[in-house]
Amino acid sequence: MEKNQLDRRGLEEKIDQLKGLNISGMYGSDFLLTWEKSIDELIATLEIADILRGFRENNISSRIYDSGLAVSLFRDKSTRTRFSFASACNLLGLEVQDLEEGKSQIAHGETVRETANMISFMSEVIGIRDDMYIGKGHTYMREVAQSVQQGYEDGILEQRPTLVNLQCDIDHPTQSMADLLHLVNYFGGLGNLTGKKIAMSWAYSPSYGKPLSVPQGIAGLLSRFGMDVVLAHPEGYEIMPEVEELAGRQAKESGGSFLKTNSMKEAFKGADIVYPKSWAPFGAMEKRTQLYGKCDFEGIDRLEKELLAQNGEHKDWECTEELMASTKGGNGLYMHCLPADITGVSCDRGEVEASVFDRYRDPLYIEASFKPYIIASMMFLSKVRDPRGKLAEQLAAGSKRIL
Amino acid sequence: MEKNQLDRRGLEEKIDQLKGLNISGMYGSDFLLTWEKSIDELIATLEIADILRGFRENNISSRIYDSGLAVSLFRDKSTRTRFSFASACNLLGLEVQDLEEGKSQIAHGETVRETANMISFMSEVIGIRDDMYIGKGHTYMREVAQSVQQGYEDGILEQRPTLVNLQCDIDHPTQSMADLLHLVNYFGGLGNLTGKKIAMSWAYSPSYGKPLSVPQGIAGLLSRFGMDVVLAHPEGYEIMPEVEELAGRQAKESGGSFLKTNSMKEAFKGADIVYPKSWAPFGAMEKRTQLYGKCDFEGIDRLEKELLAQNGEHKDWECTEELMASTKGGNGLYMHCLPADITGVSCDRGEVEASVFDRYRDPLYIEASFKPYIIASMMFLSKVRDPRGKLAEQLAAGSKRIL
Amino acid sequence: MEKNQLDRRGLEEKIDQLKGLNISGMYGSDFLLTWEKSIDELIATLEIADILRGFRENNISSRIYDSGLAVSLFRDKSTRTRFSFASACNLLGLEVQDLEEGKSQIAHGETVRETANMISFMSEVIGIRDDMYIGKGHTYMREVAQSVQQGYEDGILEQRPTLVNLQCDIDHPTQSMADLLHLVNYFGGLGNLTGKKIAMSWAYSPSYGKPLSVPQGIAGLLSRFGMDVVLAHPEGYEIMPEVEELAGRQAKESGGSFLKTNSMKEAFKGADIVYPKSWAPFGAMEKRTQLYGKCDFEGIDRLEKELLAQNGEHKDWECTEELMASTKGGNGLYMHCLPADITGVSCDRGEVEASVFDRYRDPLYIEASFKPYIIASMMFLSKVRDPRGKLAEQLAAGSKRIL
Repeated sequence: MEKNQLDRRGLEEKIDQLKGLNISGMYGSDFLLTWEKSIDELIATLEIADILRGFRENNISSRIYDSGLAVSLFRDKSTRTRFSFASACNLLGLEVQDLEEGKSQIAHGETVRETANMISFMSEVIGIRDDMYIGKGHTYMREVAQSVQQGYEDGILEQRPTLVNLQCDIDHPTQSMADLLHLVNYFGGLGNLTGKKIAMSWAYSPSYGKPLSVPQGIAGLLSRFGMDVVLAHPEGYEIMPEVEELAGRQAKESGGSFLKTNSMKEAFKGADIVYPKSWAPFGAMEKRTQLYGKCDFEGIDRLEKELLAQNGEHKDWECTEELMASTKGGNGLYMHCLPADITGVSCDRGEVEASVFDRYRDPLYIEASFKPYIIASMMFLSKVRDPRGKLAEQLAAGSKRIL
Repeated sequence: MEKNQLDRRGLEEKIDQLKGLNISGMYGSDFLLTWEKSIDELIATLEIADILRGFRENNISSRIYDSGLAVSLFRDKSTRTRFSFASACNLLGLEVQDLEEGKSQIAHGETVRETANMISFMSEVIGIRDDMYIGKGHTYMREVAQSVQQGYEDGILEQRPTLVNLQCDIDHPTQSMADLLHLVNYFGGLGNLTGKKIAMSWAYSPSYGKPLSVPQGIAGLLSRFGMDVVLAHPEGYEIMPEVEELAGRQAKESGGSFLKTNSMKEAFKGADIVYPKSWAPFGAMEKRTQLYGKCDFEGIDRLEKELLAQNGEHKDWECTEELMASTKGGNGLYMHCLPADITGVSCDRGEVEASVFDRYRDPLYIEASFKPYIIASMMFLSKVRDPRGKLAEQLAAGSKRIL
Repeated sequence: MEKNQLDRRGLEEKIDQLKGLNISGMYGSDFLLTWEKSIDELIATLEIADILRGFRENNISSRIYDSGLAVSLFRDKSTRTRFSFASACNLLGLEVQDLEEGKSQIAHGETVRETANMISFMSEVIGIRDDMYIGKGHTYMREVAQSVQQGYEDGILEQRPTLVNLQCDIDHPTQSMADLLHLVNYFGGLGNLTGKKIAMSWAYSPSYGKPLSVPQGIAGLLSRFGMDVVLAHPEGYEIMPEVEELAGRQAKESGGSFLKTNSMKEAFKGADIVYPKSWAPFGAMEKRTQLYGKCDFEGIDRLEKELLAQNGEHKDWECTEELMASTKGGNGLYMHCLPADITGVSCDRGEVEASVFDRYRDPLYIEASFKPYIIASMMFLSKVRDPRGKLAEQLAAGSKRIL
């Protein structure tokens, strides 16, 4: 597969086509959950991600800042998202400054409100990854958003930093939007996704406690485009009920469907796209969060053992060649947010057979390559009052990225 | 309260007014202690901080570097100062590179002289925070300054990096200057500070060993502007005798006064400004430094317990509504370098009552917002030979910060 | 000693002289081992390092990027190399993003291939220091290089990041090339190195396990310029046999010589240059690597004790004034990659007498000051298709570094 290539003419057209989209609400707004965004806003995010990629491929600078900081706060280890965020910020002219809670006085019981303002005097963007505790990550992002909004309104902050959710307990919008852009490229347009079947399936992993934000993000996003979204997992691996409900409602509205099954086989059958990936049961994550709250480390250890044992009962939830053969035409698109647990490579037994993964390595890497552009696009849309005008101006000016 | 807003016309006037100031000595010089700077130099630092803020508010780039590094060395954890320094450097076009002693070969017993040169080949600024050990921080900064001076004179360094004291054992100039800028804004001019009473008061905290650099910095700076500076603390919480002496001498010269008292009540009475904040006794900090020198960790533990017990005898040193009512007109300005120990919020019993803190939250945040500009101003004055000419040039050119 | 100063006229000439060099193969290529580069390519690297320094001294911007990332991966602690790399990247307009393996998902058993691609979507350069384990560092760099090459060819990466070896188990090209530039400056031209004797000598250190990359790098590089390279060490401190063989072959080809001796005295006698430095025996490093592979920490401890004891038998391998007196004219040039173990300064007994080190401090620091420019030159040559044309263009444009 190839990424579609855009020349200057193609870029002009693409920029021009932004005209039809109602995106005025994006200026100054955060990107926390995809389902808070209108279809037009999502399309604009995809389109501008593509345009920014086109700019880079044609050596056109998309810098919108001469100076300015971007704050990153990672409450979980990260390579991919860290580099994606740093790349996006750098592309637009912002310098990333990590907020490390260990080092900082946050550890001293400072309130979120104060810290949020203290780091924001010259910050244009705040990217947060906080996916570990159910009921915490999204709530924390809201608190930060409210704090900087208040600071801005009170005249403390000269600009209102934009929040970008780099993964929370509920959604993982930079991932799901990169995934969607991958699908748009792969199938030749958003319209072509109508009626396509995607199997978002649990898969076995020997590790434990993986966040639910990917299956939730996929269900919450793809159900809006007339797709047939099938969520498959063993009993006991439910995702958040609110997201299930949302996906159902959205599927109905968009003319697609949202189905649940406890059979990986059923989900894969005739699927155009499969997304087999491990996650922890929602209930267990809630329990773990409570145990952490009580500092009950013995309880946490016990829970981990239980969960690993529970995982172990579902080793047959593996994306095998046999299962892949049952997808549409035997060549459904395999997706993953990476890194995957690959049988015989990164673990004895994992989410996917090595030969399947190998066959899809290039598309998987391309899928991942969209993330920096998606993040840059989210920031661009929030920070620039007239995105279409600005992009047209940048294209016309043609300042070089490589000088 | 509002920050004063400057338009282009106002900026022109402000830049023009720099004419009268004798600041030629600032070019190429470090900023380690405010009392080494002349009144003109301090005024210029305040004025240019305001101008740089005005530039940013009017979307004018104040970048003075196309490339260049700024080194940061934090020997104590820090969020605020770290972000302030990073913001200031970024605003002027420098990229911050942290010198982490743990990671680096400094841990291998390298001499200060060598390291100082090795990190400075392309470094324009070195910001250091080293406030933990009495008699060490300032001395270390001097050593670094001498090392890079020597390196520059010997032709090893192509430029002489400027040192900025981000807090030492003696002074905290970026804080006290931000505090002063806050007062200038609040009272409508430096001249209006004459005769104003400020109570720099110790306050109870359940934590221990807070640096003395804030009370010392305030006494050492505000005593120069004709203010009535009252230093209040329980017996045994003396600051460095050299700074007390300095404050006394300066107060006399400036037509103000410097008084000490062991009564918070007395200090607050009729005060225009109060600055209640915990710190460790100077003598205890000296003792601790010696114990660290001997690696006597039992002794340190014992000392900490003693000091916490000693603190505990002064829980009544709290900035209460009752005390605030006794200030000038019942509405004296409450200041703090943040984060404060707020009773019932960040601790059971602390430096300030929650309702007092809440009432002054906005001014406190604004006070903090000046720090990045103060740091940028210090660097600007040291790195630019003709600051007035440069600022006028930047204003006229009007390059945009947000492109 | 002085660094030679270049004015604009001198820069023009130097740029013009690049004409005669065949350097077309450097575009897009990595810099892993000096012996993979032709003499012309090495000369170009030295020349452009000097030109970039001249640009900086004449306040001419050598920025070639408007945006872009540079990845740094340090598998050993580092101050000097970290700052040198950061300086070089910043000079060319790239922002460094550290890949910290602890924090990142590399710790999760990710394959090199995947990570290499994931961090490279917007990365122009990858700098790696991996010198701890014999047989690993260079191999790892090759793997990364192949991974990004593949990613580039497969259309995953829009650009092929250039690898720069910041020290591996075999070579330390940024050090040896900075050393060579130092010699060129000191002796007034590369041609003047012909027939010069350099003693690359082991020296005693109370620490253990220092990498072999410096002696190997020196032997592998300086043997190409007609020098008489003498490698001296106690029995048992052999370097890699492959590098010895290479040095011998190259010396022959270049009209110089490569000799080995077990006598420091013999090596120093009449030497124009001495480079006394501790390193670990190759065999012991191999053994240690195997022990690490087996997680045999007791074995490692035992080996460390053995090696320290072995070192201890050679305390007389110290660069003393007496030995220095035996060099050519009694004033041979003392070199070191720094930090040195200085007797009575950084340790009781070390590699060099304090008075020798002190006398050569300035040249040593100047030697170190070339490293950022060498790194920048390596990157420049790999990233710019027509380096001479670009430099001429930059000189003519005369964009300022300090604005």
